[in-house]
Amino acid sequence: MSYRVYLSGEIHTSWRDEIIAACDGLDVTFAAPVTDHAASDDCGVAILGEEPDKYWHDHKGAMVNAIRTRKEIADADVVVVRFGEKYRQWNAAFDAGYAAALGKSLIILQMPEHDHALKEVDAAALAVAREPAQVAQILRYALTGKLP
Amino acid sequence: MSYRVYLSGEIHTSWRDEIIAACDGLDVTFAAPVTDHAASDDCGVAILGEEPDKYWHDHKGAMVNAIRTRKEIADADVVVVRFGEKYRQWNAAFDAGYAAALGKSLIILQMPEHDHALKEVDAAALAVAREPAQVAQILRYALTGKLP
Amino acid sequence: MSYRVYLSGEIHTSWRDEIIAACDGLDVTFAAPVTDHAASDDCGVAILGEEPDKYWHDHKGAMVNAIRTRKEIADADVVVVRFGEKYRQWNAAFDAGYAAALGKSLIILQMPEHDHALKEVDAAALAVAREPAQVAQILRYALTGKLP
Amino acid sequence: MSYRVYLSGEIHTSWRDEIIAACDGLDVTFAAPVTDHAASDDCGVAILGEEPDKYWHDHKGAMVNAIRTRKEIADADVVVVRFGEKYRQWNAAFDAGYAAALGKSLIILQMPEHDHALKEVDAAALAVAREPAQVAQILRYALTGKLP
Amino acid sequence: MSYRVYLSGEIHTSWRDEIIAACDGLDVTFAAPVTDHAASDDCGVAILGEEPDKYWHDHKGAMVNAIRTRKEIADADVVVVRFGEKYRQWNAAFDAGYAAALGKSLIILQMPEHDHALKEVDAAALAVAREPAQVAQILRYALTGKLP
Amino acid sequence: MSYRVYLSGEIHTSWRDEIIAACDGLDVTFAAPVTDHAASDDCGVAILGEEPDKYWHDHKGAMVNAIRTRKEIADADVVVVRFGEKYRQWNAAFDAGYAAALGKSLIILQMPEHDHALKEVDAAALAVAREPAQVAQILRYALTGKLP
Amino acid sequence: MSYRVYLSGEIHTSWRDEIIAACDGLDVTFAAPVTDHAASDDCGVAILGEEPDKYWHDHKGAMVNAIRTRKEIADADVVVVRFGEKYRQWNAAFDAGYAAALGKSLIILQMPEHDHALKEVDAAALAVAREPAQVAQILRYALTGKLP
Amino acid sequence: MSYRVYLSGEIHTSWRDEIIAACDGLDVTFAAPVTDHAASDDCGVAILGEEPDKYWHDHKGAMVNAIRTRKEIADADVVVVRFGEKYRQWNAAFDAGYAAALGKSLIILQMPEHDHALKEVDAAALAVAREPAQVAQILRYALTGKLP
Repeated sequence: MSYRVYLSGEIHTSWRDEIIAACDGLDVTFAAPVTDHAASDDCGVAILGEEPDKYWHDHKGAMVNAIRTRKEIADADVVVVRFGEKYRQWNAAFDAGYAAALGKSLIILQMPEHDHALKEVDAAALAVAREPAQVAQILRYALTGKLP
Repeated sequence: MSYRVYLSGEIHTSWRDEIIAACDGLDVTFAAPVTDHAASDDCGVAILGEEPDKYWHDHKGAMVNAIRTRKEIADADVVVVRFGEKYRQWNAAFDAGYAAALGKSLIILQMPEHDHALKEVDAAALAVAREPAQVAQILRYALTGKLP
Repeated sequence: MSYRVYLSGEIHTSWRDEIIAACDGLDVTFAAPVTDHAASDDCGVAILGEEPDKYWHDHKGAMVNAIRTRKEIADADVVVVRFGEKYRQWNAAFDAGYAAALGKSLIILQMPEHDHALKEVDAAALAVAREPAQVAQILRYALTGKLP
Repeated sequence: MSYRVYLSGEIHTSWRDEIIAACDGLDVTFAAPVTDHAASDDCGVAILGEEPDKYWHDHKGAMVNAIRTRKEIADADVVVVRFGEKYRQWNAAFDAGYAAALGKSLIILQMPEHDHALKEVDAAALAVAREPAQVAQILRYALTGKLP
Repeated sequence: MSYRVYLSGEIHTSWRDEIIAACDGLDVTFAAPVTDHAASDDCGVAILGEEPDKYWHDHKGAMVNAIRTRKEIADADVVVVRFGEKYRQWNAAFDAGYAAALGKSLIILQMPEHDHALKEVDAAALAVAREPAQVAQILRYALTGKLP
Repeated sequence: MSYRVYLSGEIHTSWRDEIIAACDGLDVTFAAPVTDHAASDDCGVAILGEEPDKYWHDHKGAMVNAIRTRKEIADADVVVVRFGEKYRQWNAAFDAGYAAALGKSLIILQMPEHDHALKEVDAAALAVAREPAQVAQILRYALTGKLP
Repeated sequence: MSYRVYLSGEIHTSWRDEIIAACDGLDVTFAAPVTDHAASDDCGVAILGEEPDKYWHDHKGAMVNAIRTRKEIADADVVVVRFGEKYRQWNAAFDAGYAAALGKSLIILQMPEHDHALKEVDAAALAVAREPAQVAQILRYALTGKLP
Repeated sequence: MSYRVYLSGEIHTSWRDEIIAACDGLDVTFAAPVTDHAASDDCGVAILGEEPDKYWHDHKGAMVNAIRTRKEIADADVVVVRFGEKYRQWNAAFDAGYAAALGKSLIILQMPEHDHALKEVDAAALAVAREPAQVAQILRYALTGKLP
């Protein structure tokens, strides 16, 4: 038994590294979006040519990033979506909806302050965690049956 | 030729009514989430019993609302998602992701200020509109081939 | 907006009639398995010929009944599964699993005494109701946005 | 040729070990739910936090367990569902329905006393076995063409 | 509740008419392949131009007929396949396999002499009938719950 | 029995009108892309705002047109794709590929001069016609079993 | 690039061995039904217990064999179906229909005498071969681009 | 993370080799149609027998080639379609439509002169590149997050 886990959402804290470290020894393959913020924003124009209009600059980048994110969500057994403290994070919620429609097992990692605003997202999830360690414990339990 | 259109997202302005009025005479059936905010928040506990914990209060409501929203998105030909000025609107982005994964034609209705934050959502859309009238014009064009 | 609702499970009480009566005026089409217990048990041999072995007697009947139940579940927007006080009711749980895998909105109607035994079934449901009236209230709310 | 086989259902006897032992030498990968009853019941609250209400205690656990069971059923070529002597076993019947809707090859392992109650489940199965050894013989035959 | 039923297979006896007559008063829509044997054989070349090679003559006709048969099988709730006394009837068995893979409810209408040769086809069916009247009785039962 | 037929491809001759006229009396619903060339080219910017860059001008229009074409192909039973004498007609071939992947019955309407260049497209079709009248004859035969 | 090829149909000549030998050196994995005729006929009762009625004897065997055949067809990239000189071979035609509905690439291996009777089956195939060597040549060409 | 990339379209320049060389060191598996033009045109008759009619000569070849191309597109994560300077290239546009309907990530490699004619194809793509090097840069970025 092995899992493919896609770690979607917030890219400014170390939550991915914490989960990956805490899953040491488990047969889990992790994937993630490109977390280099500047590269992610500029990949479209850097490769395919400049756009004077910021909208199309962003659009080209978002399309190129979709090559990676759509494959990773489609290939994943479990999709973890992290909502952080800052920014609008609509791409995180979008990924959650996308994964839900594909029938993926969703784990949402969020603060209690966001519970009301995330209730529709959480309603599609199999677990709502507060700490990265809990996500790793869920994966360890799902793979081995062992509780922390 | 007829369309089923689901109008997702912001529930505090009259944008749905504007689109519906502007589509007068077209063969379009519109659907929407429950837009009575209080009913939407409390439907779970009002029908299925009180919950002392706010998280489960919200959860029961979000699950009951999902009966309606999942059916309407699944039945829709076109899903319009409106992002307004206020609130986090993660449910709107979730609906957009859900609709995108089902292959629905997506139209996003948003302010230019949100363009950068919505770039991943827009990358999955067939049109990004600024005004409800534009959404109606798209539907009129798609159905009749007539431009405004 | 209209719903197709399949009423699966227990066939010895009037719960289906109660839900249907309480949905008066709503645009809902209800379907159900054959609830004539004797006919349901004997339909296979009555039409296709006697079987001396009780196993094949049952098998022929279950197969014929599947013509109806699989279509009705496949066509339904919402599947309501009622667990009653008596019998093993594995067919009810089977229907719930079948409907869940097809992505149908599931409502489970059950007694609190069964909560622990039904927890895996409930985990796939969007609502767990105690009384038929609650099911009708959910359908009314989903269709009209009105709370009781 | 290799098989993935999910062994669902009763967790209080050694039937899984018997099948696995009897398949020695075959290219079969077996999977199962977590069979530590206490861990399975408490995994939700042990990882994600206590719930004072037993219903939500159970619910959190069933959702976490679903991460494992849904993946294993989805990945399986063959799903074996064992109905034992005791308990209501609605989760076993739910798994059978879920697997049937996904088009999995179903083998049911049951006592003759349950034949009538399981007739709808059996109608979706490709084999109804009485002993674990028979399940292993079926897998051996399917893989090698050799009869016992 | 209404059914769409596709009547596939043998075209030289009146079995279709018998079923349709015996379903009088039921909400069933019947469809069938073109049963004019000469038209069915020649439709390709009659419309699209002569072929000197008999293989391509047949091929063009079979392709044109597939426009009708694939749609009717795809739209059907129930597919009835009749195996008659004569001819090889590989198209009937092909339709049965096609319908089975689409998850349609299959009813096979056959003589006992063919039971052994049809065992793989029957294994995918929900009923094996000997007379057209039995097919009508199954449809009547499935729609109304009434036994003959 | 009724058909939905999507008429894709060349927009500069009257082939659609010829087919529709020749299907008089049949239960066929026809759909087509917007055939007003100027409106089709400019719909994006006319509704959603000017673009100084011709590429994005075209892109916005193609996306808006996709709302119509994707729905019509998805809803169709039969997709007819006409290749004319002029232009590159890559959108026609794209529609043919799109329809083929969805399992639609494809009819290609083309000149013999194009046979070699269209061989991969024709390999996915159920009929290759030379004249609009032949397409109508196929539809009439498929619906009524009558040859011309 | 590698292929999974399922070799369905006639089991009384050495055609499978000829294809496999002629594909020496290619990255192809072959699968087949159980070709031991007696084992295939009796597998159901040999494992699951005797049946006095020949119909159910056959039925149990066909169901057990379906565990193997459905998986192998579902996993295959290419399905080759061989029609031989003798027997009714409805299972071969059933497999062809099943594979066609799943979108598999079909190759039919048949005698010219059967062309008319197999025209509907051939209409769903990508190649009709006369000799096993041709099937191997097709696979070699598909994998390597080399013609014989 | 690894990618399967199908390189469709123009076969007369070295663009495939350029992309493959520029992806050196990345975990990418490339596939392509048979690029030996003569073999591709004649494969049908070379293996399955001569056809006096050029249409059927071409047809047999296109069908045999489809065994390869349909598998490769179905297995691909990313489909790159190259439109060159010459020929009608309807098979390239067909592949693009086919891949789009399957939800594959599409990259189009084209000259600016073709932008208007390809606007419907480009509307289904996630990137439009001018040079093979850009395609390799996109794949490198998608796999590693590194910009050129």
